[in-house]
Amino acid sequence: MALARIARSGLRRSAGGIGSCISGKDIFYERAAGLKSFVPSLEKVNANGNVTYLSTINRVNHMSFWSRGINTTPHYQFPLAERLVEDSESEYKEPRYPSLEATKPGEKPRVVVLGTGWAACRFLKGLDTKTYDAVCISPRNHMVFTPLLASTCVGTLEFRSVAEPVSQIQSALATSPNSHFYLASCVGIDTDKHEVYCETVSDGGLAREPFQFKVAYDKLVIAAGAEPLTFGIKGVKENAYFLREVNHAQEIRKKLLLNLMLAENPGISEEEKKRLLHCVIIGGGPTGVEFSGELSDFIMRDVRERYSHIKDDIKVTLIEANEILSSFDVSLRQYATNHLTKSGVHLMRGVVKAVHPKKIVLSDGTDVPYGLLVWSTGVGPSQFVKSLNLPKSPGGRIGVDEWLRVPSVEDVFALGDCAGFLEQTGKPVLPALAQVAERQGKYLVQVFKRIGKQDGGKACSAKDMSLGEPFVYKHLGSMASVGRYKALVDLRQSKDAKGISLAGFISWFIWRSAYLTRVVSWRNRFYVAVNWATTLVFGRDNSRIG
Amino acid sequence: MALARIARSGLRRSAGGIGSCISGKDIFYERAAGLKSFVPSLEKVNANGNVTYLSTINRVNHMSFWSRGINTTPHYQFPLAERLVEDSESEYKEPRYPSLEATKPGEKPRVVVLGTGWAACRFLKGLDTKTYDAVCISPRNHMVFTPLLASTCVGTLEFRSVAEPVSQIQSALATSPNSHFYLASCVGIDTDKHEVYCETVSDGGLAREPFQFKVAYDKLVIAAGAEPLTFGIKGVKENAYFLREVNHAQEIRKKLLLNLMLAENPGISEEEKKRLLHCVIIGGGPTGVEFSGELSDFIMRDVRERYSHIKDDIKVTLIEANEILSSFDVSLRQYATNHLTKSGVHLMRGVVKAVHPKKIVLSDGTDVPYGLLVWSTGVGPSQFVKSLNLPKSPGGRIGVDEWLRVPSVEDVFALGDCAGFLEQTGKPVLPALAQVAERQGKYLVQVFKRIGKQDGGKACSAKDMSLGEPFVYKHLGSMASVGRYKALVDLRQSKDAKGISLAGFISWFIWRSAYLTRVVSWRNRFYVAVNWATTLVFGRDNSRIG
Repeated sequence: MALARIARSGLRRSAGGIGSCISGKDIFYERAAGLKSFVPSLEKVNANGNVTYLSTINRVNHMSFWSRGINTTPHYQFPLAERLVEDSESEYKEPRYPSLEATKPGEKPRVVVLGTGWAACRFLKGLDTKTYDAVCISPRNHMVFTPLLASTCVGTLEFRSVAEPVSQIQSALATSPNSHFYLASCVGIDTDKHEVYCETVSDGGLAREPFQFKVAYDKLVIAAGAEPLTFGIKGVKENAYFLREVNHAQEIRKKLLLNLMLAENPGISEEEKKRLLHCVIIGGGPTGVEFSGELSDFIMRDVRERYSHIKDDIKVTLIEANEILSSFDVSLRQYATNHLTKSGVHLMRGVVKAVHPKKIVLSDGTDVPYGLLVWSTGVGPSQFVKSLNLPKSPGGRIGVDEWLRVPSVEDVFALGDCAGFLEQTGKPVLPALAQVAERQGKYLVQVFKRIGKQDGGKACSAKDMSLGEPFVYKHLGSMASVGRYKALVDLRQSKDAKGISLAGFISWFIWRSAYLTRVVSWRNRFYVAVNWATTLVFGRDNSRIG
Repeated sequence: MALARIARSGLRRSAGGIGSCISGKDIFYERAAGLKSFVPSLEKVNANGNVTYLSTINRVNHMSFWSRGINTTPHYQFPLAERLVEDSESEYKEPRYPSLEATKPGEKPRVVVLGTGWAACRFLKGLDTKTYDAVCISPRNHMVFTPLLASTCVGTLEFRSVAEPVSQIQSALATSPNSHFYLASCVGIDTDKHEVYCETVSDGGLAREPFQFKVAYDKLVIAAGAEPLTFGIKGVKENAYFLREVNHAQEIRKKLLLNLMLAENPGISEEEKKRLLHCVIIGGGPTGVEFSGELSDFIMRDVRERYSHIKDDIKVTLIEANEILSSFDVSLRQYATNHLTKSGVHLMRGVVKAVHPKKIVLSDGTDVPYGLLVWSTGVGPSQFVKSLNLPKSPGGRIGVDEWLRVPSVEDVFALGDCAGFLEQTGKPVLPALAQVAERQGKYLVQVFKRIGKQDGGKACSAKDMSLGEPFVYKHLGSMASVGRYKALVDLRQSKDAKGISLAGFISWFIWRSAYLTRVVSWRNRFYVAVNWATTLVFGRDNSRIG
């Protein structure tokens, strides 16, 4: 009986039809546990093929982990593995390995896109769905307009104004019969079999949990993003908030408003009050600086008016190990420093040694008590990227060639924050910026157009095909707002180049206009403008929801 | 040492200055546990005085409890009681009983308001802050514009458009030196000592948890609302969503969008897919009907367009034991029934016997599998109200006389859903409606004006004072939208009276206009209008945040 079952499922699995480019290797599946999991066993496979599989997903404390912003597979609501099979009866049923099978001859080639960030969404937006079917797999169903995320924490913008549903960006995902969006995390890739392994995002309401499935691809585009860097400092993940997703902004807002209200409670000691009202930002990059500026705006205008009992005790400190906005022109850095200081942001040089629930310890031994801690020290490769058995660029990203292809495997492309040029290309790894990711997404659309024209869309049919011009990145400049209607605009092409740089109100106007035009949909463009106008007229909303 | 400590704290406590109207009774405090709690022990006190204290607050599973909408004290993020004293050192420090002490002669009388619902906010809005200082205590810092809450679940309106910060409604709370808003739950009232006992809402970030404090009042206004009725049916609290707070609407939205996406996963069985896409509403009152209407609008317009793979499997069922909209005119009921049926809402007669995680069992034995369950069968007295040792009206609400005073105790008023006329007034308990609560709040403003004019604002100084005309409620009529630009307007003064009733597009226009004018602030009025306009133009947003 059991043997027959394995035979049947083995049969089904081999019916994929894309076995033509499997290079003679075989994959061993962990069968002993019956229904337990269809994901290939990591140990066995690494020796045998290109299957990689994220085995280290944290199953503890997911709620706080995810909500405070660790950008990893969000299993926070998964029940224990024991619940995988709901009733013992099903043990006697045939095991099911749900999958989206490989495309058949005559069907459109299927492009599987991992992620819904800048790179993935720009690629999906441009992808010609007459030539390709698209399947997008991501634990969130929307793109986040990250440059404006900091503004949502204090209520300058509404949360939804910076979120763009991916089905609005590429409507085929919602309407085309063979295109799909799956709310799931990719946990493994079998580049030989041309399959990705996924685990759905769920709140425990499915009959079988975790619900896993596999999707066969003709072409795979990995744009799964990066994770905040914590440099292995103890306590960061447990106590700090990141600022990468809309729900991170929601959590920061909730914490900030909670602290403002707690500080008013009768009998709170002066020391405790000062701690609650101390907002600390670690990292003086654009995100840290913009968030500090927004916070000081919020305090200057709204807290003074609506929390007048505690207005003199609130304090914002920005801690940076080196210099703030180090990629900006020196005169802009100076401007930002002066402006932030004038706005009441306390700038501090320091290296964080450890983070405790109520205080930070710096490397010189200073204790910094805090009520809210926002961590924004850049990003690095995610657990998922680390787990992939693919070539790596310096810094541990997925290594790509000049056409954003992952060499040594076929039909796999990587772009955005998770990808970097391989050392042998002689090109530097590009910074983790929205404009890099977006430009790469746009570039890859052209590559796919060319592949489609040459009829190379199907799996293993684009080998040695000409992909046209390689990707060249030209930096358009950087912008950062610093609060109080002031911003910096640095139009130099690189850190050491000469070029125009501006600071002040005009820059702020450029900053706002530029971002407003970049917002993806008309709906959100309209909302961002309306939000800005109402903030100007009515101030920021301070209802604490949830 | 310990004795000295008790003596000192006893001294401090008796320095309240409002002991004059304590009727010779004494209160025993639970001292044995040292710092454990300053709240009087329930058992000891009930025999001795009018202190009541909510001892049965649930400390388990608060997260799911609160988020799915049980409207009780939200201790969901409280750590264990063991963390009350952070370090063992403090055991040797003097215990602190933080409090807002009684007002001194010459100071303005202090009105303490429990709650931020319709009644509390209307009262606070009108309260003359030249005569009184106001302290508002509530676990949420905003009022919810409940009639439009159902619209936020499907994205017709944004969440924040229906939330009004209480400090915007009564700015003195934010700006006047002796007025305050405390984000806390009231857990007990000592009507003799004129004190309320509170526990702050926190996420575990305070040095002392739970953080408790007391606030002395000159006048107390209890407007703490009600709780959803579950009729003791097993599984309702664990599995159903209520629709009373903005975060309930957020949770419903998240669940709905999650189910829509899960149903698309490859390999989900037909049965499981149908279950996930089955939205069940229990209770055919205005909330249940409006939510059904919104859902069917969402499905008709947005799901068809953006989830076209599953559009034929989604189903809405409204289960009601008797007739839907039983308080409305019979012709309107008929109209609603026809309209909902035409819109695809499946109306079902049935009585729920039990609720399981994935199915409802009706009393006739029918199993109804569901993916989303919204429970809206009316409200009843909350745990807090039940725990209060005050006279009760029929149905268990706080009993009040015609002037909304709680007899047998001094300086205590109750209104809104938590209050009902005492049997001896000969008046019926009013329905739990926003218009009742609002009218009572408005009425009480006049009572307080009169008290203030007669210099009776201070504690125990308004006994036998003339409070003017008693409160008389005149029903203005009822409205309910049923989706697709249709609504019902019933202008009869009572269930059996004759009067105008309308149904259709004009009613819908009246419904929208009436509510738009009732929205409290200009900011939200503007946003509601903008939300309606964008929904019309762009459809509903379907990004799933969090």
